[in-house]
Amino acid sequence: MDHRHDDRRGLTLAIHPTAIVGPKARIASDAQIGAFSIIHDNVEIGENVIVGTHCELGIPTPLGDGRPLVISADSLIRSHSVFYESSHFGKGLKTGHRVTVREMTVAGDGFQIGSLGDIQGHCSIGQHVRFQSSVFVAQRTKIGSFVWVFPNVVFTNDPRPPSNTTQGANIEDFAVISTNSTILPGVTIGQGSLVGAGSVVAKDLGKQRICFGNPARDRGDVSQITLKDGSNRSAYPWRRHFVRGYPEEIVQEWNRLFETNPEG
Amino acid sequence: MDHRHDDRRGLTLAIHPTAIVGPKARIASDAQIGAFSIIHDNVEIGENVIVGTHCELGIPTPLGDGRPLVISADSLIRSHSVFYESSHFGKGLKTGHRVTVREMTVAGDGFQIGSLGDIQGHCSIGQHVRFQSSVFVAQRTKIGSFVWVFPNVVFTNDPRPPSNTTQGANIEDFAVISTNSTILPGVTIGQGSLVGAGSVVAKDLGKQRICFGNPARDRGDVSQITLKDGSNRSAYPWRRHFVRGYPEEIVQEWNRLFETNPEG
Amino acid sequence: MDHRHDDRRGLTLAIHPTAIVGPKARIASDAQIGAFSIIHDNVEIGENVIVGTHCELGIPTPLGDGRPLVISADSLIRSHSVFYESSHFGKGLKTGHRVTVREMTVAGDGFQIGSLGDIQGHCSIGQHVRFQSSVFVAQRTKIGSFVWVFPNVVFTNDPRPPSNTTQGANIEDFAVISTNSTILPGVTIGQGSLVGAGSVVAKDLGKQRICFGNPARDRGDVSQITLKDGSNRSAYPWRRHFVRGYPEEIVQEWNRLFETNPEG
Repeated sequence: MDHRHDDRRGLTLAIHPTAIVGPKARIASDAQIGAFSIIHDNVEIGENVIVGTHCELGIPTPLGDGRPLVISADSLIRSHSVFYESSHFGKGLKTGHRVTVREMTVAGDGFQIGSLGDIQGHCSIGQHVRFQSSVFVAQRTKIGSFVWVFPNVVFTNDPRPPSNTTQGANIEDFAVISTNSTILPGVTIGQGSLVGAGSVVAKDLGKQRICFGNPARDRGDVSQITLKDGSNRSAYPWRRHFVRGYPEEIVQEWNRLFETNPEG
Repeated sequence: MDHRHDDRRGLTLAIHPTAIVGPKARIASDAQIGAFSIIHDNVEIGENVIVGTHCELGIPTPLGDGRPLVISADSLIRSHSVFYESSHFGKGLKTGHRVTVREMTVAGDGFQIGSLGDIQGHCSIGQHVRFQSSVFVAQRTKIGSFVWVFPNVVFTNDPRPPSNTTQGANIEDFAVISTNSTILPGVTIGQGSLVGAGSVVAKDLGKQRICFGNPARDRGDVSQITLKDGSNRSAYPWRRHFVRGYPEEIVQEWNRLFETNPEG
Repeated sequence: MDHRHDDRRGLTLAIHPTAIVGPKARIASDAQIGAFSIIHDNVEIGENVIVGTHCELGIPTPLGDGRPLVISADSLIRSHSVFYESSHFGKGLKTGHRVTVREMTVAGDGFQIGSLGDIQGHCSIGQHVRFQSSVFVAQRTKIGSFVWVFPNVVFTNDPRPPSNTTQGANIEDFAVISTNSTILPGVTIGQGSLVGAGSVVAKDLGKQRICFGNPARDRGDVSQITLKDGSNRSAYPWRRHFVRGYPEEIVQEWNRLFETNPEG
């Protein structure tokens, strides 16, 4: 890796002079790379991407498949974050500070990872998933679209630690995993379901259910939970009342579906 | 931001030559700024402050109110920490490594934040509060004075995640929140009360009480808990026997109050 | 600390030109030091060691005993990690990113610390111990050999927080502490025992037992737990079937012992 790739910097003043960019990295001309950050060779960075300070992107690893780390357009990677090669993110990735993402992670558009998130790689994440801070994702975890994960949640994968068996959790679309919960290996959380704070979830949870406790138990239909805004409306499915930050076309589709199926 | 502000460095050798300091940052002449750290323009750093290596202080954000990040005298910010603009800390702030503090955080004197602490901003923290490692503070949390918070505690704020309602927790003076506990949105922990390790606290707790469990239940008066030093004395109020590191005038006031009211 | 120690760099091209190495640091000629990393004077780094980017090793502290930070041969310290002086690690230390290790930590060979691990110092760790991400180790914790610790586990040490009494936990050889568990002060986890995920352990656990829950209760002999690989074999002692990454001579000794004592 060259210390500095002067030709490129001549064209793109937005690469800080202290940043270290590999000569083979493909970086859109309007990308911004912060001070003391390092971009390795096997990296593609799209248009309108901002990389904060003290980051390291595209760390080589024999555990990858040779493909580059792809950071698509309109992404923001905050300071002190670390990404390995051979992972792919859709448009509009947003991270907090100090995120770690290992190789062979595939995520759709609009993925948000809060500060200190730790994704162990070899996992798939759908569209517009939002993690708050300090979420840990073991290998082979499968997360659907529009999932929410709150601080300190852990997705595990070894049912008999330590063993040679790996069973990732499976989180279906629109599910919500609240703070400090642990999802045990191989557990499925059904579409639109809610795991309450501090839960230890050892059994599969169906669709549109709520569970909580240690061990977590199914406590009924999630639609029985009402909003705390004085409206007495059901709080779930959450996409009926919470649409902040989602693309307009997605919100319109959600609204169309609710008109067709008011229960849905 | 200038790469280096040579005039200032000429006067204060304690700014490391690799540090990057904005030309408008106001930094006391005896402050020390570590290698590879970045100080943005909208920052005020008081006398006898040490900033470790690889930090970034005063990150601009439209979510602030335009006011600077203020780090008052006698503070120590350890390496890899990140602070946004528009937050204010009293004298003697001490942080561990890799602390993140977002905008609109206001804290009194003597605040200690352990490594990996993550303060989401828009919150208030009283005098001489002490966090151990990996404490997460959601927006709108209100923490009184002389509060203790142990590792991995999470203060949440969304009662129906995700929703548009934000209800910060309210932690009163002298309260102690033990390791790995979750404080649910809008919950008040009363003055001098103790939340046991691993609790999930969904209900308000009165003054001088102890709760623990998932869900946490009120288990009685905290003064029934005795010290483990062989003395058989009550362990709470803790300020009767634990005064390490607090200013002398505060300890004297605590002692005066106990003479007036031996129960208090 | 000199900005750069040119003589050494002349000999060892593997010290990145942006790294800052104290002139008194003793670094094996084939060690690699990453970009923007800092090695203080009171450090010894053995042969075939790789230090990632943005690290700081050997931070001086009056709480040490004057001895150096020793990183023995064949070690890998990943980026953004921080070690203080006066700690000693055997051969083959491997860390994730953003590890923090304070002074007076002593660990044997083959220690693995996952990303975001936070070791508060003044503790002892045996041979071939493996921590996954975000493990917190309070001072005076004593961890045996071949112990496994999973993400977000906290070892505490203050039985009446805050107090002047410090009682570290004691984790015996081959024990396994699962995700998100809290080990309360002074608790002993017996040899080969398993603490289930999300446990809050307030009482000692004997040898070869399993406990889980909040509060954790002894649920019986750990050998009753069977593998999830379809074999119906007992999952514990785990060293009967899981040997990945351990030195050949250790695995052979384990096998010899099992031949002598099939139960053991």
